[in-house]
Amino acid sequence: MSKLNLADGWSGAMGLEIVSVKEDEVVIEWTVGPRHLQPFGLVHGGVHAGVVETACSIGAGFVAAKRGQTVVGVENHTSFLRAVTGGRLRATARPLQVGRRAQLWQADIVDAGGKLVATGRVRLFALDPEAPAPKPAD
Amino acid sequence: MSKLNLADGWSGAMGLEIVSVKEDEVVIEWTVGPRHLQPFGLVHGGVHAGVVETACSIGAGFVAAKRGQTVVGVENHTSFLRAVTGGRLRATARPLQVGRRAQLWQADIVDAGGKLVATGRVRLFALDPEAPAPKPAD
Amino acid sequence: MSKLNLADGWSGAMGLEIVSVKEDEVVIEWTVGPRHLQPFGLVHGGVHAGVVETACSIGAGFVAAKRGQTVVGVENHTSFLRAVTGGRLRATARPLQVGRRAQLWQADIVDAGGKLVATGRVRLFALDPEAPAPKPAD
Amino acid sequence: MSKLNLADGWSGAMGLEIVSVKEDEVVIEWTVGPRHLQPFGLVHGGVHAGVVETACSIGAGFVAAKRGQTVVGVENHTSFLRAVTGGRLRATARPLQVGRRAQLWQADIVDAGGKLVATGRVRLFALDPEAPAPKPAD
Repeated sequence: MSKLNLADGWSGAMGLEIVSVKEDEVVIEWTVGPRHLQPFGLVHGGVHAGVVETACSIGAGFVAAKRGQTVVGVENHTSFLRAVTGGRLRATARPLQVGRRAQLWQADIVDAGGKLVATGRVRLFALDPEAPAPKPAD
Repeated sequence: MSKLNLADGWSGAMGLEIVSVKEDEVVIEWTVGPRHLQPFGLVHGGVHAGVVETACSIGAGFVAAKRGQTVVGVENHTSFLRAVTGGRLRATARPLQVGRRAQLWQADIVDAGGKLVATGRVRLFALDPEAPAPKPAD
Repeated sequence: MSKLNLADGWSGAMGLEIVSVKEDEVVIEWTVGPRHLQPFGLVHGGVHAGVVETACSIGAGFVAAKRGQTVVGVENHTSFLRAVTGGRLRATARPLQVGRRAQLWQADIVDAGGKLVATGRVRLFALDPEAPAPKPAD
Repeated sequence: MSKLNLADGWSGAMGLEIVSVKEDEVVIEWTVGPRHLQPFGLVHGGVHAGVVETACSIGAGFVAAKRGQTVVGVENHTSFLRAVTGGRLRATARPLQVGRRAQLWQADIVDAGGKLVATGRVRLFALDPEAPAPKPAD
């Protein structure tokens, strides 16, 4: 996982903190601030969807790397359950399917009280090493 | 739309620029930079999903406001079609359904060459004014 | 649940059998036959999506009825994990969110060996009794 | 397309009629009857999702066959817009993405008056001929 530097890029811009990365679980936490909000003061759905994408992609990529593969996310479906205005959030991603050609991961986001606030699934392709440089689904 | 200040919050953090807002079309543009990338240098899927969420929510909210309603996004489903490493991107959102109780919007994101790079749909509830302060789907 | 007669309609045509209906769990079983297959001899994705829709709708409707509400499904997102050519399948639906205005249910479909073959989520609106006759999201 | 016999299997059980199959468009029609309804007399969401699955899979398979590939559907996301109680329905599927490793198709379902009643997207993998017999995403 040495390539993963969440201090840069989108995850860094969002202040995401990787708590743990395992083959069957990825945990990310962050503290809600102004950069996460939509105009009405609630956490933006895109933040939830993006954290789902991050957590699932890290997990799928971690598993794929052990097989000499890379992954490319192609679908993200996130459901929003509760409004969040602040506090600490935690996303936990787990695999629903780990195949040779594809993976499906799910991430649940809970608030400090453990209540589910959003949940999403990411479908990813697994690419063998002989394949060309990763491009989404081409 | 005077309440919408995209200079703040997530949309501001992402540098999104609203080009136009109409009842049946919302256009947003942005220039890809480091804050939009995942660790492999491609635009993060969460950015696409988030821009889809922003464009669709602005459109749905604009239509709802004319009826004295507010909207709450409950589902975001975004598909990623092409890898993007930089340049200018444009999202165009249009309504698929505008009902009294719900709306469904779709946003397509194209690159500077007009190629479709991502596309997503957002399902939103429409809440009547007598309803309590907006909370997602409760 | 006296209104629910799965011997008729789509569920009857598919041979679905309701095993149990509770506020937090609905179980449906069926035996795969020719009517469930696509041209290559595998269970049709539409059958999985349809069973997900049936199980989630029964559960959400059951909960809603206790509150004097009805529900209308507006989004169905189903993922296919394993090919199935025959045998006995079981779908178990559980609620992810039960709100006053909306519900979100998830159904998992397993084969006779307990392996997950498909999983999906259904978003539903909850309508109060004073509302007009149920029409999807209008 | 000689392998496709919609008179059998799920599509036959549902009475689907293929109107046309082209590389960039598949049209299916059917007349609503009791076998398509849920307990409240409306067309079952699973029927819409299943027709979306059928139309998109036929189109993607048609394109793939020309390349010596096969396809496997892995995600189906269908939105329900209007209640339908009877009449003639028409589904038109078109490709959003046709890649070497994956395809994304969308199908829109309209009633006899041309009103959009449901719309969905199917993500499919494309498998090269040397690959083993098609199994979903494994």
